[in-house]
Amino acid sequence: MMIMKKDLKTILPEGFAANGLACGLKKSGKPDLALIYSSAFATACAKFTTNSIIAAPLVVCKEHLRIAKKFRVVLVNSGNANCFTGKAGIKDALATVNCLARQLKISPKSVLVSSTGIIGKRLDVAKIKKAIPELTAGLSGAGIHKAEMAIMTTDTFAKEISVSLTVAGKPVRICAIAKGAGMIAPNMATMLCFIMTDAAITQSALNKALTAAVNKSFNCISVDGCMSTNDTVLVLANGVAGNKAISGGKDLLNFSRALEYICLDLAKMVVKDGEGATKFIQIDVCQARNVQEAKKIGLDIANSMLFKTAVFGENPNFGRVASAVGASGFNIKEGKLKIKLGSLKGKAVKLTVSLSRGKAKSTVYTSDLTPGYIKINAAYN
Amino acid sequence: MMIMKKDLKTILPEGFAANGLACGLKKSGKPDLALIYSSAFATACAKFTTNSIIAAPLVVCKEHLRIAKKFRVVLVNSGNANCFTGKAGIKDALATVNCLARQLKISPKSVLVSSTGIIGKRLDVAKIKKAIPELTAGLSGAGIHKAEMAIMTTDTFAKEISVSLTVAGKPVRICAIAKGAGMIAPNMATMLCFIMTDAAITQSALNKALTAAVNKSFNCISVDGCMSTNDTVLVLANGVAGNKAISGGKDLLNFSRALEYICLDLAKMVVKDGEGATKFIQIDVCQARNVQEAKKIGLDIANSMLFKTAVFGENPNFGRVASAVGASGFNIKEGKLKIKLGSLKGKAVKLTVSLSRGKAKSTVYTSDLTPGYIKINAAYN
Repeated sequence: MMIMKKDLKTILPEGFAANGLACGLKKSGKPDLALIYSSAFATACAKFTTNSIIAAPLVVCKEHLRIAKKFRVVLVNSGNANCFTGKAGIKDALATVNCLARQLKISPKSVLVSSTGIIGKRLDVAKIKKAIPELTAGLSGAGIHKAEMAIMTTDTFAKEISVSLTVAGKPVRICAIAKGAGMIAPNMATMLCFIMTDAAITQSALNKALTAAVNKSFNCISVDGCMSTNDTVLVLANGVAGNKAISGGKDLLNFSRALEYICLDLAKMVVKDGEGATKFIQIDVCQARNVQEAKKIGLDIANSMLFKTAVFGENPNFGRVASAVGASGFNIKEGKLKIKLGSLKGKAVKLTVSLSRGKAKSTVYTSDLTPGYIKINAAYN
Repeated sequence: MMIMKKDLKTILPEGFAANGLACGLKKSGKPDLALIYSSAFATACAKFTTNSIIAAPLVVCKEHLRIAKKFRVVLVNSGNANCFTGKAGIKDALATVNCLARQLKISPKSVLVSSTGIIGKRLDVAKIKKAIPELTAGLSGAGIHKAEMAIMTTDTFAKEISVSLTVAGKPVRICAIAKGAGMIAPNMATMLCFIMTDAAITQSALNKALTAAVNKSFNCISVDGCMSTNDTVLVLANGVAGNKAISGGKDLLNFSRALEYICLDLAKMVVKDGEGATKFIQIDVCQARNVQEAKKIGLDIANSMLFKTAVFGENPNFGRVASAVGASGFNIKEGKLKIKLGSLKGKAVKLTVSLSRGKAKSTVYTSDLTPGYIKINAAYN
């Protein structure tokens, strides 16, 4: 029996603080610099985009995760992805890391860094450096909302959640913030997600839990089929809750379920906030030979411009679903395929595709394709 | 030295006639039934969609091409794809074939049939049967333009071309009509293309020429990444020109080049007429390890909603190109990648991507993604 409760208001776990402010990277003057801070050294685990072109902060993070075991802070900027910026981009990311480390008197290796925004432009390091004293001075528990605001790009609403559970008799909390609205595709989307927990957990158990949670959440969503260069899901576990470190068994199962709950909730929020989206579409592919097949077919439907456009137009064109399934490469035959498309009138649309090939199933989430998506992306720069 | 000349006006090769009319399948009352006729038995060769769900007329065509050697007519309707219609759909297609065969006093096996339009609705066979006497009575050389009009769906302009060349001292002609504007993706698009030639050519030489021509044309275009269930490129060669049958060597080379020229010209027209398109985009991927790699990367860029939308917005966001290349699965590294994006202001946009990995190259054609595409496809039914 799992003991997990969603908090009514998002609350940071013990030992964490956060902040967010506008340092001037965004022309709009909106918040664009966030900091997540742990007073205790935290175990960390991350999943990054599988795009072979990755942003400079991901290069830095991967290196820090390789050489260090414990971490203290995550610095995130929006407005500039610091991607396709070559060696200069890595130097820029490290400059912000070093500046923050000096300010907090911690090792640069305990700093993780993340960026989102336009690709191919140098990061304005001076603006970030200048803002770091104010950013660190303002760290607080309530600052998580400010941090969330500062990682948003085309997002129209904040995405945060926290849950409480009991691990080995101790109350622990998991809290997460996310951003993402466009360039959303597996694996994983221009999606940033930062998860904080005061639970004590071993590195390998944390990795197991995160892998499972991401595969069933962020890797099951697509807004536009475009895979980002900056995707990051990062979890910090600082152990301040004082539980016996989770390493397996029932404790890991409970923790994993809570993590999956959080990730799926945020992933759905990302889809609901899909650029220009007017509909939230759930695609259940069932009776597949295996989960991979079900997921691939679900994502192929989710990425069909014609299907997405039909849903926008409330046009029940199931032929476009059949066409996408047939194009998926699994040699699905017409006689075996059953398509059930629910009402298109409301905000939530459900599509069920049955393949009559086996017992596996997968659920994928996507949004419709609308003139709003084009308006946002034709002008974005 | 190849002797090929594009005709100023589209002219049917010797021994061919065509016609088109409105039989009532389209609500709009526009032409929706076309006939291509050869007075002599013609060798035929066809390429069909690789979608595993294929329309009923494709099932019928494949069977006729398997069991018969020579063909006389192609019956094409627009307004209904006769796809995802099960066994009833095949029965419907055969009913139209049989009716036409009786009218023309030819074997049903010498009839080929093709459909395009909405998926999942039964074909109104009675309307087609009723129109067949008028359709056959009106066959003429000039009727090719009527046939072209009758195969169009969301097309905004007619796509036809003819070229003249000399084969073994005899003048021969190749003429083709095509339709296609949406659900355009390799391999091949909701694309119908009917090619007629009075050249004599062996079945195997014709197949070789058609395979090469389609791979370099219709399989290099994408409007929306959605693969159709009805794609057909069909060539009829009736030998009326009286040349010694082409079987290889220089004659086949010349014929192949002419066929490729025709297919590429029509493929480009399809992209230019892409649903809602305002820009024609040529993507050259060079310095690839092999042609497959170059083509896959070109098509991945062509299918990136973010790239297509950026071009529409005349927003030179080359980061979206880098992101699409990185997501292509070939482990392309940032330092090796060169992206050159020409001016976005005009109607024609050229993108060159150099990979520094080898000597192979491929060119892909696509269109931008616009509110017009969504308007057309949200309402289409």
